[in-house]
Amino acid sequence: LSEDKAERGNYFEDFRLGQIFDHATPRTVTEGDAALYLALTGSRFAVHSSDPFAQAIGYKRAPLDDFLAFHLVFGKTVADISLNAIANLGYADGRFGVPLYPGDTIRAHSEVIGLRENSNRKSGIVYVRSRGVNQNGETIVDYVRWVMVAKRDPAAQAPSPHIPTLPDAVPPETLIVPAGLDPTPYDRALSGSRFGFDDYQPGEKIDHRDGMTLEEAEHAMATRLYQNNARVHFDAFQARTQSEGGKRLVYGGHVISLARALSCNGLGNAFHVAAINAGRHVAPAHAGDTIYAWSEILAKAELPGRRDFGALRLRTIATKDRPCADFPDKNGDAYDSAVVLDLDYWVLMPL
Amino acid sequence: LSEDKAERGNYFEDFRLGQIFDHATPRTVTEGDAALYLALTGSRFAVHSSDPFAQAIGYKRAPLDDFLAFHLVFGKTVADISLNAIANLGYADGRFGVPLYPGDTIRAHSEVIGLRENSNRKSGIVYVRSRGVNQNGETIVDYVRWVMVAKRDPAAQAPSPHIPTLPDAVPPETLIVPAGLDPTPYDRALSGSRFGFDDYQPGEKIDHRDGMTLEEAEHAMATRLYQNNARVHFDAFQARTQSEGGKRLVYGGHVISLARALSCNGLGNAFHVAAINAGRHVAPAHAGDTIYAWSEILAKAELPGRRDFGALRLRTIATKDRPCADFPDKNGDAYDSAVVLDLDYWVLMPL
Amino acid sequence: LSEDKAERGNYFEDFRLGQIFDHATPRTVTEGDAALYLALTGSRFAVHSSDPFAQAIGYKRAPLDDFLAFHLVFGKTVADISLNAIANLGYADGRFGVPLYPGDTIRAHSEVIGLRENSNRKSGIVYVRSRGVNQNGETIVDYVRWVMVAKRDPAAQAPSPHIPTLPDAVPPETLIVPAGLDPTPYDRALSGSRFGFDDYQPGEKIDHRDGMTLEEAEHAMATRLYQNNARVHFDAFQARTQSEGGKRLVYGGHVISLARALSCNGLGNAFHVAAINAGRHVAPAHAGDTIYAWSEILAKAELPGRRDFGALRLRTIATKDRPCADFPDKNGDAYDSAVVLDLDYWVLMPL
Repeated sequence: LSEDKAERGNYFEDFRLGQIFDHATPRTVTEGDAALYLALTGSRFAVHSSDPFAQAIGYKRAPLDDFLAFHLVFGKTVADISLNAIANLGYADGRFGVPLYPGDTIRAHSEVIGLRENSNRKSGIVYVRSRGVNQNGETIVDYVRWVMVAKRDPAAQAPSPHIPTLPDAVPPETLIVPAGLDPTPYDRALSGSRFGFDDYQPGEKIDHRDGMTLEEAEHAMATRLYQNNARVHFDAFQARTQSEGGKRLVYGGHVISLARALSCNGLGNAFHVAAINAGRHVAPAHAGDTIYAWSEILAKAELPGRRDFGALRLRTIATKDRPCADFPDKNGDAYDSAVVLDLDYWVLMPL
Repeated sequence: LSEDKAERGNYFEDFRLGQIFDHATPRTVTEGDAALYLALTGSRFAVHSSDPFAQAIGYKRAPLDDFLAFHLVFGKTVADISLNAIANLGYADGRFGVPLYPGDTIRAHSEVIGLRENSNRKSGIVYVRSRGVNQNGETIVDYVRWVMVAKRDPAAQAPSPHIPTLPDAVPPETLIVPAGLDPTPYDRALSGSRFGFDDYQPGEKIDHRDGMTLEEAEHAMATRLYQNNARVHFDAFQARTQSEGGKRLVYGGHVISLARALSCNGLGNAFHVAAINAGRHVAPAHAGDTIYAWSEILAKAELPGRRDFGALRLRTIATKDRPCADFPDKNGDAYDSAVVLDLDYWVLMPL
Repeated sequence: LSEDKAERGNYFEDFRLGQIFDHATPRTVTEGDAALYLALTGSRFAVHSSDPFAQAIGYKRAPLDDFLAFHLVFGKTVADISLNAIANLGYADGRFGVPLYPGDTIRAHSEVIGLRENSNRKSGIVYVRSRGVNQNGETIVDYVRWVMVAKRDPAAQAPSPHIPTLPDAVPPETLIVPAGLDPTPYDRALSGSRFGFDDYQPGEKIDHRDGMTLEEAEHAMATRLYQNNARVHFDAFQARTQSEGGKRLVYGGHVISLARALSCNGLGNAFHVAAINAGRHVAPAHAGDTIYAWSEILAKAELPGRRDFGALRLRTIATKDRPCADFPDKNGDAYDSAVVLDLDYWVLMPL
C-alpha cells in the first residue's frame, strides 16, 4: 500500500523500554553550516568565529557552535521519536564531548529509557537518551529528553510505566574538557569581554540587554538546516486551518540558540557549553516575537587538575516581547507570562 | 548611449534558429551552496548530506543536489533567453551527466532549436537546448525548455516557425549512471527509508504528507543563489504597481526543489535524479503558499548491465494550500485548481 | 555589579582624540560567507563567482566581495564605536588593500581622529579611521567614517572640537592594485558585459533597471553575518514601542551591497572596488522597500604603469520604491525623496 511508503512516525504505543533507534540521516558538517548558523543566530563568541583564536587555546580549528551540534543531533531524532509529539517537555543530563569540526560527519542514536501513559490515555511521555557521534564514533553530545507523544489508538495497551531517574544537574567533575585545551593565551580583547571566571559570583544576575526578532524564514531555515522535519515548524496552512490565527511553532532549539547568542553580551568568555542540566520550553515562540534573555550564575566549580579555567553553572531565561532589565522569573511554578525558555547549563570560562 | 550599457535582454524577434549563447557567469560551487540549498529546501536525501554515505556507494564525496545543479545552469540562461519571458512553458529531454561537487565550476551554453510566433504577433515561443558543463567540459545537465518571450515590436518580422521534435520521455537505456557508482553498500537505515526499487509498482501513488510554506526571503535567496536575475522574482514594487495586490512570482524551480525535498518521505532512496522527461508549472506560486506533493510511479526500468539498482519514472505533482491525501490531479487538460507543478522524471534507486 | 558585565557601548563623552580600539571579534571567512553574500545580495560579478575566472586574471582564487570585506570590518567596530549611535553620517578616504580570500582571518582596529559636540549638548560627532587586516597584518580595507553618538549625560564635559581634514576623493594614483593582477585574459563573454573602460565617458548616466525588495529576514541575516550588533537592526519590539509603526532600520551597508549588485547590469566589468571616496545614507530603508539604483561616471583615471585597465570614479544613487530611468538626484542639498544612498567610489575595469 502506498501509504506505507511515507512515514507517519511512531505513536506512543509503538515505543518499548530499551528500544534502540539508529537515526537517519548522516550529515557531514561544513563551513557553510557555520556561516548559516552565525547569520541565523548572531552569535559572536570568538572561539567559533576565528580559526587562529581557537587554535591558540588548543582547538584544531574553530569548532562549530555547541548548540549547532546539539540541533543537528536533535534533528535526526525527530523522524523516529517526535513526529507525533504534542509537546517537547524537557532535557536533562546532557554532556558535550569532542568538538565538532567542519568535515566531520554526525550520526545519531537513541534509546528509550522511560515511558508513562497519560491518565487521559490519549498520549504518553517518552524518555529517550540520544547520542550524536562523529565519524570516529566519538560522542559529540549525549542527552536525555522527554516528550509527550500522541497515541494512534487511545484503546491501545500501554507498557507499564517506567520513569527514569535523572540527575538534577550534571556533576561538574564529570564535565568533559576538549582534549588539548589550554586557555592560557585566551585573549579577552579579542573575545570582547574582560570578565573571567573569577569575576562572576553565584547569585549574580546579568541582563543581556539586546533583543532579536524572529522571522518565519529564519527559524524555518535554521530548522531545515538541522534536517528536523517536524511539520509544526513548516506548515503554515495546517497551523492556520487547525486553529484560527494559528502560526507555525518556532523550534525551541532556535530560541536556545538565540538566547545563547544574546548571552555573549555579559558572558562573552563562556566559550564552551559543557553540559545541559535541565531545560524547559515554558511557552511557544512564533515569528514576530522579539527574544530577550538574562542569566543567573547558579554555581561555580573548579575542574579537576585545571587552574586555567573553571565551570559556571548558568540559568538563562529567555522572554518574548519583554526586555529583561528586571529579570522576569517564576513565582513557585508560575512563570512570568513573557518567559519562553528556562535553561540550566554548564559553561567553561578562563579564570 | 547609457541605455545600451544596462542589458534589457533579448526579445522574440532577436532569436535565430541555430543561434548559440555562451552564457555568463561562470560559477564555482562550494559547501556554502550545499548548506544553503539544504536550509532553503529541507532536503534530507542521505547521499547529498553525508560524504561517507556518498563515498560508500562510489561518489567522490557528497555531490550537490541534482536540482541545485539544474537551477545554477538555468539561472545562467535567464539573462540571454528569458529576461523578457511571459511564461516558462515546459521542459523536456533533460539528462543529468557527471555529478557536481564542491570546487567544480559551472558554465552554461544554449542553442535555439525552435521558434514559433504566437498568432497575436505580440510574442512567440523560443525553444532552447541548454547545457551546463564543469571545468573539464563534462556535461552536468542538458535539457530543453520552451518559454514564451515578448516581442519588442509586434510589427517585427518573425522567423519561419520551427517546432523541434522532442521525446515524450528520455529512453531509460540512455540514462547516464555516474561513473563508479556501486550501491551495494547503500544503507537503508541511514537513508531513512526501507523501500527499494523492488518495492515500488507502476501505478502506485504516494502522498508525501508534509507541507512547506514559502516565504519571500526564502525563494528570493534561493533564486539569487542561482544568479537567476529575472526581475519578477525580486521586484515587489513592480509587482504591486502592475497589478493590484500583485506579488513577486516564485521561481518555478524553487517549487521543484521543494517537491523533490518533500518526496524524501516516501521515496527516500531515490538518491539521484537521472532525467527530466517533462515538466510544467501549472500555476504560479507566491510567498505564503504551502507546498504539498504526491508522486505516481509511471514506470520501472532495469538499466543495461546493472543488477544493483534500477530507474523509476516518477510523476510528482505539487499543490499549494492543499494536502495531497486524495492525489489531486487533472481531468483531461484541466488540473485541480490547487496544482502548481507537474513533473515527470527518472530517478535511480537501489534494488 | 551585574550591569557592568553586559556592555552598553561608549557614549560621546567616553571618546578621546587619538584613542585606539582593538576590536573584537576576529573572524575567519569562508566559502559559506561567500555563498550567503551572494544569496543575500544577488551579486553576479564574475570575479567573485568563479575561481578559474579570478585565477585567469591573477587572483589566487575568487576573492570575497569587496563590500563583504568592508561590512565584516565595519561590523567589528560597532560594539566600540556606534552602539549608541543616532545616525551614521558618512564615509571618506576608504581604500581597499589586499584581496580577502576564504580562509583568511579578519581583525579590525580604529583610531578616533575627530570629535565635535553638537550644539544641543545631547550628542556629538565621532570621526574614526578604521582598518581591517588579515592574519598577516596586511590591510584589507582602511576608511574613515563619522557617526553621531549620544551622550550618556548631557552635562558631561566634551573634549575640545577637532574636525579632521578629509580628501574629497581618494587620489587615483594612490589606488591599490591587487598584486599580480593582469586582466589581459579577462573574458567579457563570461562576465556578461561587453563594455570596458574605453566605453565609458565622464558624465554618462546608467540606469541599472532592476529592483530588489528587502525582507526583514534578509537584512537581519546579512547584518548578523557581519557580527554587527547594533540593536536597531534586530529589535522590532523596541522599534515598535519607541515609535508608532516603527520598524527595524536596515543596516545601510546592506543597501550599499544591493546597489553594487544591481550595478552589475551596466557596469558588469567593474570587477573591483578600489576606494570609497564618500558615502551618505540619505534616508533609512526598511523591509518592504524595493531598492533601485543608477550610476554616473564622475571621472576616469589611467593607473601608473598600467595599460590593461583603468579606474572609473562612480557615483551610485540608490532609491526606494522608485525606478531610476530618469536618474532621481538632488537639487542643491535637497535630495529626491526616494533617494536612500549616495555613494562615490573608484572601481577598476579592463580597457
